[in-house]
Amino acid sequence: MQTGTLYTVSAPSGAGKTSLVKALVDSDRDVTVSVSHTTRTMRPGEQHGINYHFVERDEFLQMLDRDAFLEHAQVFDNFYGTSKEWVQETLASGRDVILEIDWQGAAQVRRQLPDTVGIFILPPSQQALRERLTGRGQDEQSVIERRMDQAIDEMTHYVEADYLVINDNFDEALHELRAIITAQRQRLERQQERHGELLQALLRH
Amino acid sequence: MQTGTLYTVSAPSGAGKTSLVKALVDSDRDVTVSVSHTTRTMRPGEQHGINYHFVERDEFLQMLDRDAFLEHAQVFDNFYGTSKEWVQETLASGRDVILEIDWQGAAQVRRQLPDTVGIFILPPSQQALRERLTGRGQDEQSVIERRMDQAIDEMTHYVEADYLVINDNFDEALHELRAIITAQRQRLERQQERHGELLQALLRH
Repeated sequence: MQTGTLYTVSAPSGAGKTSLVKALVDSDRDVTVSVSHTTRTMRPGEQHGINYHFVERDEFLQMLDRDAFLEHAQVFDNFYGTSKEWVQETLASGRDVILEIDWQGAAQVRRQLPDTVGIFILPPSQQALRERLTGRGQDEQSVIERRMDQAIDEMTHYVEADYLVINDNFDEALHELRAIITAQRQRLERQQERHGELLQALLRH
Repeated sequence: MQTGTLYTVSAPSGAGKTSLVKALVDSDRDVTVSVSHTTRTMRPGEQHGINYHFVERDEFLQMLDRDAFLEHAQVFDNFYGTSKEWVQETLASGRDVILEIDWQGAAQVRRQLPDTVGIFILPPSQQALRERLTGRGQDEQSVIERRMDQAIDEMTHYVEADYLVINDNFDEALHELRAIITAQRQRLERQQERHGELLQALLRH
């Protein structure tokens, strides 16, 4: 039996989470990002099964009824959720799975799967964050301030993570993220799962 | 305040521990190997403070009396020990410290400093180990068998470690060892120690 590790990766908007996770999974075939289910409408350019699994509201509610989600959330009229079955099958195949979710989703997942490893990505300063959230200077000050407040609210939850990655330099942050994934694979429990026979053979007198 | 992480690295003879640890510390200024105190006689080529701190038996026993060792052992007539003061000062300076010790030493250290991270290095098979322990074919079979038995006894303690590194390919094992060190530096507690001010500043409204 091979089992991977489940990660939650959380961050405020503007911390560079999506780019880091994309670079990570593009360079490591043994780690993959979960594709969420959603009831919202597909936008131009989006693909079913790539960006989201787009489902009808009824189907989503049926899945919710049979406890098919590791975590879910409602944002205005739309539902979003992570399929428990897909995550568990992928982990059982030995691959690591990353869930890109906010602190509330991460907390839901941890309650169901306490072995989940939480990673929080942070910007190097409020000023850097503000610059990334300002966009191309077309937004009103009040909009930027609201984004900053939301980002700060999300960041207060960094203490719930196991690892903090500070994204000052992209390559360095990516290196640290990769190191976390590699190190977790060497943990005793993971190695016992992957190399049970080798470990038995080594101890034979 | 910056604090490093204390590691114990254990392995049976022949697993490649010393070469791996040397390559690791040679490539990373922020991690260093503890130099033990010993009462044994200096051998040709050895240097005080490099291979060991060579001390008189009386001095060692006085240090033992004032609880100056994180761990110690007696091998035949000689004592060996790890200075608690040096380890704690080095950790306080922000550097990581590696203790190359057997499972008994590692257990002593863990009792005093429960945050110690244990790494166990294993050979990829008994046959590979036997080849490495056979030397240049000049040893008697009974000597080799005794070494194998000792190696197997040591290996039964891999379950006490946090991480297992299987040294099949040297470069890969080194990469994994480095990843463990890098990942541990991103752990919440370490980051809070190193980046306390940044973390406070990020959450300021």
